[in-house]
Amino acid sequence: MKQHAIPLKDVIIEDGFFSHYADLVRQEVIPYQWEALNDRVPGAEKSGCIQNFKIAAGEADGDFTGFVFQDSDLAKWLEAVAYSLTKHPDPELEQTADDVIALIGRAQQEDGYLDTYFIIKEPENRFRNFRDCHELYCCGHMIEAAVAYYQATGKDAFLKIMERYVDCIRRTVGPEEGKLHAYPGHEELELALVKLADATGDNRYLEFASYFIHQRGQAPLFFEEELKTRGETFRFDGNDAQPESYFQSHQPVVEQKDAVGHAVRAVYLYTGMADVAMRTQDETLKEACRTLFRSICEKRMYITGGIGSTVDGEAFTFDYDLPNDTNYAESCASVGLMFFCRRMLDMDGDACYADVMERALYNTVIAGMAMDGKSFFYVNPLEVFPQADHEDPHKSHIKTVRQKWFACACCPPNIARLLTSLPAYIYQQSDDSLTVNLFIGSTARFRSGTVTQRSGVPNNGDSTFTFSLPKEETFTLRVRQPSWSKHTTVTVNGEPVQPTLEKGYWCLTRTFRDGDTVRFSMDMPVRRLYAHPNVREDAGKVAIMRGPMVYCLEEKDNGASLHQVYLPRSASFTEAAGDGLFTGLTLLHTTGLRLTPADDDTNALYRETPCTRLMPQELTFIPYFSWANRGENEMMVWVREPLSY
Amino acid sequence: MKQHAIPLKDVIIEDGFFSHYADLVRQEVIPYQWEALNDRVPGAEKSGCIQNFKIAAGEADGDFTGFVFQDSDLAKWLEAVAYSLTKHPDPELEQTADDVIALIGRAQQEDGYLDTYFIIKEPENRFRNFRDCHELYCCGHMIEAAVAYYQATGKDAFLKIMERYVDCIRRTVGPEEGKLHAYPGHEELELALVKLADATGDNRYLEFASYFIHQRGQAPLFFEEELKTRGETFRFDGNDAQPESYFQSHQPVVEQKDAVGHAVRAVYLYTGMADVAMRTQDETLKEACRTLFRSICEKRMYITGGIGSTVDGEAFTFDYDLPNDTNYAESCASVGLMFFCRRMLDMDGDACYADVMERALYNTVIAGMAMDGKSFFYVNPLEVFPQADHEDPHKSHIKTVRQKWFACACCPPNIARLLTSLPAYIYQQSDDSLTVNLFIGSTARFRSGTVTQRSGVPNNGDSTFTFSLPKEETFTLRVRQPSWSKHTTVTVNGEPVQPTLEKGYWCLTRTFRDGDTVRFSMDMPVRRLYAHPNVREDAGKVAIMRGPMVYCLEEKDNGASLHQVYLPRSASFTEAAGDGLFTGLTLLHTTGLRLTPADDDTNALYRETPCTRLMPQELTFIPYFSWANRGENEMMVWVREPLSY
Repeated sequence: MKQHAIPLKDVIIEDGFFSHYADLVRQEVIPYQWEALNDRVPGAEKSGCIQNFKIAAGEADGDFTGFVFQDSDLAKWLEAVAYSLTKHPDPELEQTADDVIALIGRAQQEDGYLDTYFIIKEPENRFRNFRDCHELYCCGHMIEAAVAYYQATGKDAFLKIMERYVDCIRRTVGPEEGKLHAYPGHEELELALVKLADATGDNRYLEFASYFIHQRGQAPLFFEEELKTRGETFRFDGNDAQPESYFQSHQPVVEQKDAVGHAVRAVYLYTGMADVAMRTQDETLKEACRTLFRSICEKRMYITGGIGSTVDGEAFTFDYDLPNDTNYAESCASVGLMFFCRRMLDMDGDACYADVMERALYNTVIAGMAMDGKSFFYVNPLEVFPQADHEDPHKSHIKTVRQKWFACACCPPNIARLLTSLPAYIYQQSDDSLTVNLFIGSTARFRSGTVTQRSGVPNNGDSTFTFSLPKEETFTLRVRQPSWSKHTTVTVNGEPVQPTLEKGYWCLTRTFRDGDTVRFSMDMPVRRLYAHPNVREDAGKVAIMRGPMVYCLEEKDNGASLHQVYLPRSASFTEAAGDGLFTGLTLLHTTGLRLTPADDDTNALYRETPCTRLMPQELTFIPYFSWANRGENEMMVWVREPLSY
Repeated sequence: MKQHAIPLKDVIIEDGFFSHYADLVRQEVIPYQWEALNDRVPGAEKSGCIQNFKIAAGEADGDFTGFVFQDSDLAKWLEAVAYSLTKHPDPELEQTADDVIALIGRAQQEDGYLDTYFIIKEPENRFRNFRDCHELYCCGHMIEAAVAYYQATGKDAFLKIMERYVDCIRRTVGPEEGKLHAYPGHEELELALVKLADATGDNRYLEFASYFIHQRGQAPLFFEEELKTRGETFRFDGNDAQPESYFQSHQPVVEQKDAVGHAVRAVYLYTGMADVAMRTQDETLKEACRTLFRSICEKRMYITGGIGSTVDGEAFTFDYDLPNDTNYAESCASVGLMFFCRRMLDMDGDACYADVMERALYNTVIAGMAMDGKSFFYVNPLEVFPQADHEDPHKSHIKTVRQKWFACACCPPNIARLLTSLPAYIYQQSDDSLTVNLFIGSTARFRSGTVTQRSGVPNNGDSTFTFSLPKEETFTLRVRQPSWSKHTTVTVNGEPVQPTLEKGYWCLTRTFRDGDTVRFSMDMPVRRLYAHPNVREDAGKVAIMRGPMVYCLEEKDNGASLHQVYLPRSASFTEAAGDGLFTGLTLLHTTGLRLTPADDDTNALYRETPCTRLMPQELTFIPYFSWANRGENEMMVWVREPLSY
């Protein structure tokens, strides 16, 4: 039973929760980012991205602007545009895209080379610093965009451009003697080459991806060798202090046991590993993917699906090191974690991957964007005390309000391309099954007809699947039993049935007929979550979840000094429909306790009498993703719980 | 009643606890540091300090070695030597000191200038970067050493050298038109000039100190003006990113309300402010000192008397920001805090200053040195988890074991000079009183005879004061009522008396006769201390003190994962005499609780069932200063306390 995702073009989301996001991206994010790429946003830092391509094409004068990976901003925008066009044809937007793709073509060099930084600034140094210079990373994003655009529009101009560039790289890099045994400093090209192979049917691209995966970390370490040839000039200092593990190049990937280094790079690599492993039936590589996935989800992941415990290197640290107020948990890293999970679902078909994918989606990924689609977080802390974030240099990376646009603009377009391609994360199919991974209202083409899901998630756990089938079909409907639900009842056309549970999915094998409706009623209790006892930062604390959503306290609802709030184990919650900003969401109310100094309390810094006056306080928990949409204030996910003994 | 300290030369320590420290400094630290200054310690980073003076004197070839403030290492060593010679004549050591003082004299330039960095490296740039280049700082330390050496030996050669240097500086700097309106980037010269004025009786030095104090922070800000004249060259980059508050130069000192910036600089400044304020009867400046003292001890000081909440700028941060595992709390800063406290005692005669002085001494200052005197801490954390300190770059400044010698060797000699001058911190006298600030066994010359203190501190609170007086003397004996004691009984020659309590001192006014013995019996209970509710890092936690000592848990006694240890409010303590390393110290035993996962506990990172199995565990608390004397291990001062409600 080989499962694979039902692709984007075959799924339409119509969902009380996520339709809004697709609209936001289409109506707000994509147009805004286009203006930004063209340096037309007043007050925003100059992107220079389009201008760079014009200069490279000889159609404008000037110097290169931005980071060495500036081209990838345009790539991610085009990828999001492609996904958007798949669902929402827009001739004007498509023309804009066609025009900029033509510009990309004109910027391409005769030999196929295509990276505006090196074309403009130092052509003599191209392919001389794979560790730091992101040529392969940018190429990867351009390929992803080209494949998406081809699949959305059928137009292959961009695809051809990228094939030429890959050929150019392949002439320089590869296993053959005389070529550089290089691999990307920032992984991304690996997974992109697999997409290119799938789209073109050309197996050479898969082989090239496999080469990159397996060459990585082989002795002698390429980045060390490369550094010797480069000498002291032409270095990008920022990375010189980074260990090889920052790049996941410290050892061959099949020997790696722990998720390490820059979190985005890591999950992009693991995604490419899974892609290659599945297509080459490489069992050792598959097992490495499973090991690394377990390292993340059992020891190095926030309850929000965030990854990257430290700003230093935007990186994983060590097992159970999960500080809440100094972490990184980059939006992009959780986007990448979703990529990885989706591949692992195809590889192993186990619901554990969908659980993590859903956790990252409903919490960190959508927390990265304001509810109005106009501002973004890179960093997603689980606890914020604004004064500390302003005055403690160790927390200066923690922003207390979302930012309009970043000089290094990776997260906003990454969120955009994830949300526009979200339909492709919901279902998998095989010869004899339909699998439901996410509870998102949608209609998918399936076999001779369609399946339409209506889902109450995230507000309730009722999901119905109605089949429109011109002819009878016999297959297994596999619906995930989410970790957030305890009791599930299932009916087919109103009649109770008892499916079997396999690998975390309710499996119902029968002959489906047109109009059949399968209803899953999953309870969605408020849950108290506790961290593994080794997580020092969460000792004595509890987090609240309901459905896939992590909840948090904000100062706006609960007052300042959230560290003085306690949530007794006996507290019971009332669920309430939110209004205003929270319309369509479920808020949670309960009675907690607040340490309340007596009016005559001493002001001494250290005192023998503890403050023990616990006064009842009404508490409101809001979904974590919706924090910081009402201005700057304190926020807290992990709340203190009195320890009874 | 003008009180002032009974000076070093008039007090001899004979104490069960501190005599050991004076011996260590004399026998271990001073000889070791001399070898280090002469680059004769195998494996240690080269100091170059003595060599720099030889090069400056034209007696050796080579380049300058070390930091721009390298000269101060020799100064602090000479100051410690001077204090040591005061108590322990040592002709060989004195000859070594005389020789190196002669070398200093030969290095001095014709116009009096004396800073080896600029003499050797860039004479054209002297007095061009007061903000970063430490010329005035080094001068201050040299003055302190010269005064100490003069007072110890009666030899004034060093003093004359330094007077010539001060004259040289004064020709360049001062309020007069045409002179630079400069002040030190790192404060120190201010307090040193007051010492020079006191030693020489020359009021011009006090005026110069007063100038520096009052000029600081006046508009236009000198460091900004200076930067303009310096341009882009000759900059010390490290400080360019620092705000003026790092230097305490952001506003005139009398307007400053909060202790800010680099903590050592801050307390050195405040010490100089108090020195000047007392001698000039400047009430506004006195009030500024009191305000800044309150800022420290009410809002910005660790329970250990450590100051400096962050490694960034080794600085104060903001009110109640007292993280335990990322702090700086430099040993030098607590030495400086003791300087400040001693001045405030002279200014106001309030026991609150002695309480803080004692807190810093018994905890952070002596924690800075290993119990064998052979290794040192700069940074004094209150919580250590070695893996985090090794693997989290934000904690890389936290050392888990003391280090042999530092390239920037400020703390070891600072601790050495504090411990060798400790006799001068014990007593104050006035025309009609004797004040006891510290309970340290000692004999002090007083009036016509002596007073001998026998003290059980830190093990018990019994202190007796025996007077040897050739003639009757009528005065008030003022003995501090320490914050660590609740019940004090006092007898005179065995007869109970009831002194009055004023400003935190038990005051006993009578006619004292030869052989009179006054006995203070102060109970010394184990105390549970709680932090102000605004201290987020200490919420739900308790610290243990007994007498002046803060206690801590170490992994060696209590196992790893100290975050899983709870100390119930009902726990009772047993006091036990330590042995081995802890001989002469009191250890505390109690029964606490440890969160103990069940054998069949899930390994899940997040789970619905909290680990609530609390198993009794015997706990041993050791004095904080003695931590990390048994190798690397976890340590914790603030221990979790179950919250009953």
